[in-house]
Amino acid sequence: MSILVVGSVAFDTVETPFGKAEKVLGGSASFFSVAASFFVPVNLVGVVGTDFGDKERGAFVGRDIDLTGLETVEGKTFHWGGKYSFDLNSRDTLFTDLNVFATFKPKIPAAYRQSQQVFLGNIDPVLQRGVLDQVEKPELVACDTMNFWISGQPEELKRTLARVDVLLINDAEARQLSGEWNLVKAARAIRGMGPKTLVVKKGEHGVVMFTEAGAFAAPAYPLEDVFDPTGAGDTFAGGFLGYLAAAQHRDEETLRRAVVMGSTLASFNVEAFSLDRLLTLTRKEIDERFRLFKRLTHFETLG
Amino acid sequence: MSILVVGSVAFDTVETPFGKAEKVLGGSASFFSVAASFFVPVNLVGVVGTDFGDKERGAFVGRDIDLTGLETVEGKTFHWGGKYSFDLNSRDTLFTDLNVFATFKPKIPAAYRQSQQVFLGNIDPVLQRGVLDQVEKPELVACDTMNFWISGQPEELKRTLARVDVLLINDAEARQLSGEWNLVKAARAIRGMGPKTLVVKKGEHGVVMFTEAGAFAAPAYPLEDVFDPTGAGDTFAGGFLGYLAAAQHRDEETLRRAVVMGSTLASFNVEAFSLDRLLTLTRKEIDERFRLFKRLTHFETLG
Repeated sequence: MSILVVGSVAFDTVETPFGKAEKVLGGSASFFSVAASFFVPVNLVGVVGTDFGDKERGAFVGRDIDLTGLETVEGKTFHWGGKYSFDLNSRDTLFTDLNVFATFKPKIPAAYRQSQQVFLGNIDPVLQRGVLDQVEKPELVACDTMNFWISGQPEELKRTLARVDVLLINDAEARQLSGEWNLVKAARAIRGMGPKTLVVKKGEHGVVMFTEAGAFAAPAYPLEDVFDPTGAGDTFAGGFLGYLAAAQHRDEETLRRAVVMGSTLASFNVEAFSLDRLLTLTRKEIDERFRLFKRLTHFETLG
Repeated sequence: MSILVVGSVAFDTVETPFGKAEKVLGGSASFFSVAASFFVPVNLVGVVGTDFGDKERGAFVGRDIDLTGLETVEGKTFHWGGKYSFDLNSRDTLFTDLNVFATFKPKIPAAYRQSQQVFLGNIDPVLQRGVLDQVEKPELVACDTMNFWISGQPEELKRTLARVDVLLINDAEARQLSGEWNLVKAARAIRGMGPKTLVVKKGEHGVVMFTEAGAFAAPAYPLEDVFDPTGAGDTFAGGFLGYLAAAQHRDEETLRRAVVMGSTLASFNVEAFSLDRLLTLTRKEIDERFRLFKRLTHFETLG
């Protein structure tokens, strides 16, 4: 089993109430890849500029992450700057310098074409379909998107969604995409567009997954110190799909454990800037926190 | 086992995106009593005006709810009017006519003084302590409060909290009371004020309970049609404390099941205006939805 991920590899400049990080490694494919690599080999497709050095690349080294598909192009790497509110619940984008990412056209290396799982990061839905056209029959296609594409390219997005098995978006995006405020109704509408599994991320309020079997709700892990939420969603996706790929099952029980595994990985990621916490993380710590999630949510049935 | 509840019995005029209900039965003690009466006898203390008729009283009849403590005073019953936003997530109070409730001084009938549990609804913290002074050694004291008392009477409230075992408030109130944004830190601060069990209600995002054993998170039941959220918190409290009183245990596992029972009752209450859904509810329906909560949250541990 291996996962192909297509998305951004970027520099982030992030300010939270607790500090500031300048031009640190970020991007959806970065968080996703490191999280998923705890479970299965990852094939990364993205683009960086000539300013992306060995230091940044070092985050992927020594892990099961193949960088053949990480193109280097003359110019600067995508650079995003944002500032979080005091409660970390909202953020302002200060700048979005797309740089070499502006003309990104994912090229899938021959060695990647048989990846069994594909994660389409949040890029133009036309490019997302272009990726699918370059891979041979993946067993599972997962996808992320955002308000920009939902409002700007609704028809293209729907064409992509028709080819997607798992959609991972946040609650606001689910409401926007479906035109339904109620999440149960929104889920029904979205599952009708193609993705039989819908994972709705609600930040500090956890995750709700909708499948054929109904709804599964998992809380976020109650942390005393949330330092930087950047990348939590992509880290969740990496843990979720990585676990799923390794399990080689897609039954309801496995999907549920995958949600908890995604939540587990995300709960670590928010403890530090950039990928800092993921890079020191061990499988033992992951399994330990997974057990704490069980403790956090378990109750006995009525006697 | 019996529960003494002190709180408001009121008329509500409520407008939601789905309709309007004029001068229907409401008030914290009303929702609480009916919910708790599914589990144990309830002793109600409150005040109504001469306009509170047999029709309204009918909601309590045929249930194990003692109305000896429901005083009738010359004048009008407390009347609250509110309007919900399209998403039901916020509401504007249109009017608060306290009427006879303005001068409410809870008098505890002799027959109530040995109630084993006490629920202090959201009233002046000085009056809450006055209630405790009139009862003999209850086994468990639970309490609700709101922003009005947290900012207006902080010292009196703290004196009351020192005598409370279980505090049930929403997340905004927990943050305000503790001065901590982070809920884990807020819970530690509040538990230090007296209540060893803190139940934080987060509306559509469920409930987090903090105890000696740590945190327990339960989602709200994902309903397709939420009709009117009025009284959900008090209904939760009634289900929570009713279950706890009937169980005659206060260990962690029982507390957790009580949280789910509270969530179960609340999930029914929001399906209709006023107490309408609670009044047709059966114990069989309650137990069935409790089982659905288990299904909603259950996952297997790692192999």
